Amino acid sequence: MIWSAGFCLPVIRDREVYMITSLSNKTVKEIAALSQKGKERHKKDVFVAEGIKMFQEAPLERVCGVYVSCSAEQEILKLCGEKLAGISYEVVSDDVFAKMSDTKTPQGILCLVKQFHYDLTFLMERGIKKQLLFVVLEDMQDPGNLGTIFRTAEAVGANGIIMSSRTVDVYNPKTIRSTMGSIYRVPFVYVDDLSAAIKVLQAEDVCVYAAHLNGHVFYEAADYRKSTAFLIGNEGNGLRKETAACADALLKIPMEGRVESLNAAVASSVLLYEAYRQRRV
Amino acid sequence: MIWSAGFCLPVIRDREVYMITSLSNKTVKEIAALSQKGKERHKKDVFVAEGIKMFQEAPLERVCGVYVSCSAEQEILKLCGEKLAGISYEVVSDDVFAKMSDTKTPQGILCLVKQFHYDLTFLMERGIKKQLLFVVLEDMQDPGNLGTIFRTAEAVGANGIIMSSRTVDVYNPKTIRSTMGSIYRVPFVYVDDLSAAIKVLQAEDVCVYAAHLNGHVFYEAADYRKSTAFLIGNEGNGLRKETAACADALLKIPMEGRVESLNAAVASSVLLYEAYRQRRV
Repeated sequence: MIWSAGFCLPVIRDREVYMITSLSNKTVKEIAALSQKGKERHKKDVFVAEGIKMFQEAPLERVCGVYVSCSAEQEILKLCGEKLAGISYEVVSDDVFAKMSDTKTPQGILCLVKQFHYDLTFLMERGIKKQLLFVVLEDMQDPGNLGTIFRTAEAVGANGIIMSSRTVDVYNPKTIRSTMGSIYRVPFVYVDDLSAAIKVLQAEDVCVYAAHLNGHVFYEAADYRKSTAFLIGNEGNGLRKETAACADALLKIPMEGRVESLNAAVASSVLLYEAYRQRRV
Repeated sequence: MIWSAGFCLPVIRDREVYMITSLSNKTVKEIAALSQKGKERHKKDVFVAEGIKMFQEAPLERVCGVYVSCSAEQEILKLCGEKLAGISYEVVSDDVFAKMSDTKTPQGILCLVKQFHYDLTFLMERGIKKQLLFVVLEDMQDPGNLGTIFRTAEAVGANGIIMSSRTVDVYNPKTIRSTMGSIYRVPFVYVDDLSAAIKVLQAEDVCVYAAHLNGHVFYEAADYRKSTAFLIGNEGNGLRKETAACADALLKIPMEGRVESLNAAVASSVLLYEAYRQRRV
């Protein structure tokens, strides 16, 4: 092996690959910053998608960098060889990979992916008119909950997710992981004025239902076969009064015992699967 | 203030309270170990419940220690004064609290609670015979998912949760937080032999349904008004073959798009809320 500043040169599969081994390498620092800081991601218009599944499902045309940890390379080639054949990737030492990674036990592959830019019109024009399905999230803070909602939204064939601008960053690595790939396929939009966005939906005959502790319509009693949006509030505080006031109806998800509310991803899933059930029956 | 080794003596509400300020104090180390290590919790037969809600809902007779951070004390007294009046608590410096705590932004109160010891017979004898409802979890690994399932199980009035012994520790602080208090009210049991436990349920006319990717019964087509148990597998691998084989039927939760599976807490919730819906209609 030939060593230079921060690089070593192993020979892998008959070709020479520079392996990044220095923790102070510029690229390494940049990717670590992209994992940790929403501002950096926004500035560079990319995000970090980590793990085998997230790499396998990434649309190739959006991938702008692939990094594989030295010790995992053979295993990664076995699992992702076909996809990796189409692009170049960089091998990094395990130390370097750990620095780039957001997980405690990394799978040894991460990629940089160009951010998505949808708008509300795009979301509205996708899917069968008169049978649209949206999730509208106000100020959701838990990255895992947000990712789980993306995953469930794809599972029920929802047309998109609309989020208030104070909602957690969808490109947070925890969110990305929790989507299990749905981030690539479910369109979404952040809006500064959630009430205005709700009015746009209503103007297109989308009925907007808010999950609400003061709800008086049992969630299974409403008809979701026509265009529907479910409005879900912040984990701790629920929906703001003025946002809830925009809804066409407040839904009650009944609860026994001393439970005061459901986990936000659970509440969303109960509603989405009830809509999906009604549409399939 | 009078200082002694690791203690200072502030006067609070007309009484003298020793404040623990030393990070090497024996109690501090013990509680940090209880937060971090399942073995320690098991040995001492207690667990750590952190946050205002978890303290407020803790059954007083099980609480065997309460710790409040110095800077949060006045606020905590405002919110939990009534409950705190009945028991003694220790004030600790913010540094010490941070060491004991499992959260990044602690609310400033944690308590030690005696562990619960239920058995399968207890779970079976609780609730309306012929309309029991259980969740059976095999090797679930995510603490947040497990806690969320407890929360949803209470919300639908389930009679208990049965877990394989390789399931994550229910007393993990992340699980405890995610239960939002349901840990105090939903009985549960760990079993070494999950198949044997399933047979016990079936002997009492509980119909055991497994959520399974090869399921052929649409989940909404089954009748859950009689005694029901939902069998949910590990997040990554689903159910073991031999466990799935014990089920009375394999349920299919339909999914659109490229989604291969749902989050385990979401899958549980969709099934539990469908059972609850059928029982209420």
